Amino acid sequence: MEERRLQPSDAPIVSALAAYRQRRRASFHVPGHKAGAAYANGGHAEGAWLGAVGAFDATELPGLDDLHAPSGAIEEAQELAAACFGARRTYFLVGGSTVGNLAAIHAAAAPGELLVMQRDAHKSAIHALMLRSAGAVFAFPSPDRAVGLYGGVAPERIADALDKHPEAKAVFVTSPNYYGIGADVRGIAEAAHARGKALIVDEAHGAHFGRHPRFPESALAQGADVVIQSTHKMLPALTMGAMLHLGSDRIPPERIEAFLRMLQSSSPSYPILASLDWARRELHTRGAALFETALRAIDALPGRLHGTANGRFGVSATADPLKPLLYDGFGEWTGYDILDRLAELGVYAEMATERYAVLACSAATTDEDMERLTTALEEIAARFPAKKKENRQNSANMYTLGTLSLSAPVYFKAEDAIAASRTDKQREVPWEDAVGETCAEMVIPYPPGIPIVLPGEPISPETAAAVLRLRAQGAAVQGVSDRSLRTVRIQAWDRNPNQG
Amino acid sequence: MEERRLQPSDAPIVSALAAYRQRRRASFHVPGHKAGAAYANGGHAEGAWLGAVGAFDATELPGLDDLHAPSGAIEEAQELAAACFGARRTYFLVGGSTVGNLAAIHAAAAPGELLVMQRDAHKSAIHALMLRSAGAVFAFPSPDRAVGLYGGVAPERIADALDKHPEAKAVFVTSPNYYGIGADVRGIAEAAHARGKALIVDEAHGAHFGRHPRFPESALAQGADVVIQSTHKMLPALTMGAMLHLGSDRIPPERIEAFLRMLQSSSPSYPILASLDWARRELHTRGAALFETALRAIDALPGRLHGTANGRFGVSATADPLKPLLYDGFGEWTGYDILDRLAELGVYAEMATERYAVLACSAATTDEDMERLTTALEEIAARFPAKKKENRQNSANMYTLGTLSLSAPVYFKAEDAIAASRTDKQREVPWEDAVGETCAEMVIPYPPGIPIVLPGEPISPETAAAVLRLRAQGAAVQGVSDRSLRTVRIQAWDRNPNQG
Repeated sequence: MEERRLQPSDAPIVSALAAYRQRRRASFHVPGHKAGAAYANGGHAEGAWLGAVGAFDATELPGLDDLHAPSGAIEEAQELAAACFGARRTYFLVGGSTVGNLAAIHAAAAPGELLVMQRDAHKSAIHALMLRSAGAVFAFPSPDRAVGLYGGVAPERIADALDKHPEAKAVFVTSPNYYGIGADVRGIAEAAHARGKALIVDEAHGAHFGRHPRFPESALAQGADVVIQSTHKMLPALTMGAMLHLGSDRIPPERIEAFLRMLQSSSPSYPILASLDWARRELHTRGAALFETALRAIDALPGRLHGTANGRFGVSATADPLKPLLYDGFGEWTGYDILDRLAELGVYAEMATERYAVLACSAATTDEDMERLTTALEEIAARFPAKKKENRQNSANMYTLGTLSLSAPVYFKAEDAIAASRTDKQREVPWEDAVGETCAEMVIPYPPGIPIVLPGEPISPETAAAVLRLRAQGAAVQGVSDRSLRTVRIQAWDRNPNQG
Repeated sequence: MEERRLQPSDAPIVSALAAYRQRRRASFHVPGHKAGAAYANGGHAEGAWLGAVGAFDATELPGLDDLHAPSGAIEEAQELAAACFGARRTYFLVGGSTVGNLAAIHAAAAPGELLVMQRDAHKSAIHALMLRSAGAVFAFPSPDRAVGLYGGVAPERIADALDKHPEAKAVFVTSPNYYGIGADVRGIAEAAHARGKALIVDEAHGAHFGRHPRFPESALAQGADVVIQSTHKMLPALTMGAMLHLGSDRIPPERIEAFLRMLQSSSPSYPILASLDWARRELHTRGAALFETALRAIDALPGRLHGTANGRFGVSATADPLKPLLYDGFGEWTGYDILDRLAELGVYAEMATERYAVLACSAATTDEDMERLTTALEEIAARFPAKKKENRQNSANMYTLGTLSLSAPVYFKAEDAIAASRTDKQREVPWEDAVGETCAEMVIPYPPGIPIVLPGEPISPETAAAVLRLRAQGAAVQGVSDRSLRTVRIQAWDRNPNQG
């Protein structure tokens, strides 16, 4: 029999589940809902959707392969994904980008070793350092004045960090960020590779990058070695469905695989795996056309807004057209106000800043969604009429990080995460006396929302000076117990791991 | 307004999702499938079930609470679960019992610290030790001669381990095991508590324990301090849905919570959370009656088998009536044969041993399932007629572990998991010369399937003697490269973590 080659139109996991569904006559196997039959009990209306997914919520049965040692449908689906995304190798994740970040950082740094890391990395990256007892030199990102938000880290800053800390094992950056602003990944990759280091990119918000001429290039195409994508965020996968792609073997695959085996469930969710397979097939077979309807709807949004609520609302654009940033042109409502009031009407924005409500669109976004958005904006504008008219500058509210560019190395322990909530092991000192102490809280001027100091980090003279400058500016700060920035909580216990 | 108290018939997460579904008009929020709309595209038949679950695959929107800082529907659902299971506190898990075991062990032992652990603990427990750079003294379980399988660890053995290693921080046991055989958890809890140690029980296979007069008592009722249950295995939750219960504060809740926050996805799956809530409501409102239909079907199975295939097949029972052990009374087919042949007909048994195919039943098991099972057994018996008639003893095939009762302390590193596959860093020596070396592979006589030595473990004189005895008996062994047990692969590299 001639072996049939895999086609982009194949979806091996989706097909294997359908075949299983046909074949199944009785289950004396976990899960206990028995292919969803349990959800038909009890007469609860919600049983219908649980039953629908339950019918496909299988486990490692014959024909369904094994995520932790794939040799069938899952292996094929991962191969197709690698081909689709241009990766050397792709791993399906059922624990979100969280587990991808955890595994990549564990693989890159052994206990006591150092990474160069973007300062505003996702909390899972900091958690990885804590779990691994590893350290980081933090590189601060640069402001994007056009929209008044911080963006990526400059390649020169990464190069500088690696030159100052040649013992660092790898570089970890986030691109794009929540607002769709990407970094110069190519420049960062060149800086890293020139110094023999691997580059890990948290591309959680950019699984669609490179899939349409109007989207920025993907991190893989720009030379990243390990890329983590939240397929569920911008592509049609179920929540917790993500992928880890390898662009090279700079971080050996067996290290990544070992940590994924240890950190992921031994009973991975097949519906989530199938949704990853589905999302890849959509992208693979429909290409850029997949996004045309959504892009047309997004392009028409400024015109719609012009005719809504006296033209009160506007949108700013970042490099990612799927992330329009909605704002009140009358300068009265914050992004939080817009988000909260829309949510009351069942229109959900992704997140907010002082100025913007971030709209996360996807290939499934339609003109009808935009219609509902503008109807809702009309309604909330009528309900809360504007009191004053003032056109705030986009960037007016952003505190600058000043001269902060690189942190000293910060070594974490898992116990830091526990101790952060144990106020009995902390004490409060004036910021003026804090230099040299270990910080027990976060100081996050907002905007831009980038931490100036983290729990477990030694407070350097530069850090303390930056805080005093923010205090003089009257900055709004998150994370600290004393928001007036007079005092800071420092760690007052032995940081020996056995004492946590 | 009077605050309404939570009732067992409430399912706060299920209800919150239903309310969200009603409220939702447009999503500019992740996930990218936009409430399942994406699955209607493309004309693929499988879109129906993905769409059905996608409509409820929401994320941390207003009204839906936050698993990592619960204060609404998730907090209420966890409180109801704690009341239902008799826990001081309950945490919903979206990463299976795997993440519960990882978090509990991380919370119990700091790097370099020791646990007393059941030798045949789930691999996630060993992975936790590796990730945490912690150690274990392994206590071997005891044989259950009635069914010819190993069962739980004797309380005396745990007491002995703690007396020999008073520096151990906690005890970790599995109860019940895969076959439904439980340990004397009360006795183990008493032994641990008398010595000031906490007891963690991996009750992955026993979420139904204590819920019907015919089921064994639950680990919580027997005094365990931390209990991890795979709700998806024996109760109707979706795969990866699990719970971690606290019976005491011996391991401080803030430590467990800190590790769950670090190890679980920052975007947990709401369908999985809702299914946990659903499963708890079923149990809470229907009580023992939930299992009556299934128990009647299971009780009728021996009679059905008597009338099937000339009475060739029988079932043995362990303490858990939901785990009948199916065997070939003619002694011709192994449990593997039965499992494989049934699977070809779409009847899925849970697992197999040399003798048994383990049938995992649940509240959703029906007479119809038993009918399909016996029809399938009739069919495979006709297709593969018995060649010889011989009634093997249940316990005939079990290798005994002999004098092995406790291991020496074994300290793990994450690098062990990577190195185990790097044969370039191993060498082969005769078992006679292996004492004092660090083993690079597992030696698992099968049955009973309990590892005699693990990768990273020093080979003691007792271990080597046990292997030589097994070799003399002609034992079947898994995990080793040389199954004749002449040689063993040992580690031939520096175990410094920075060299992994």
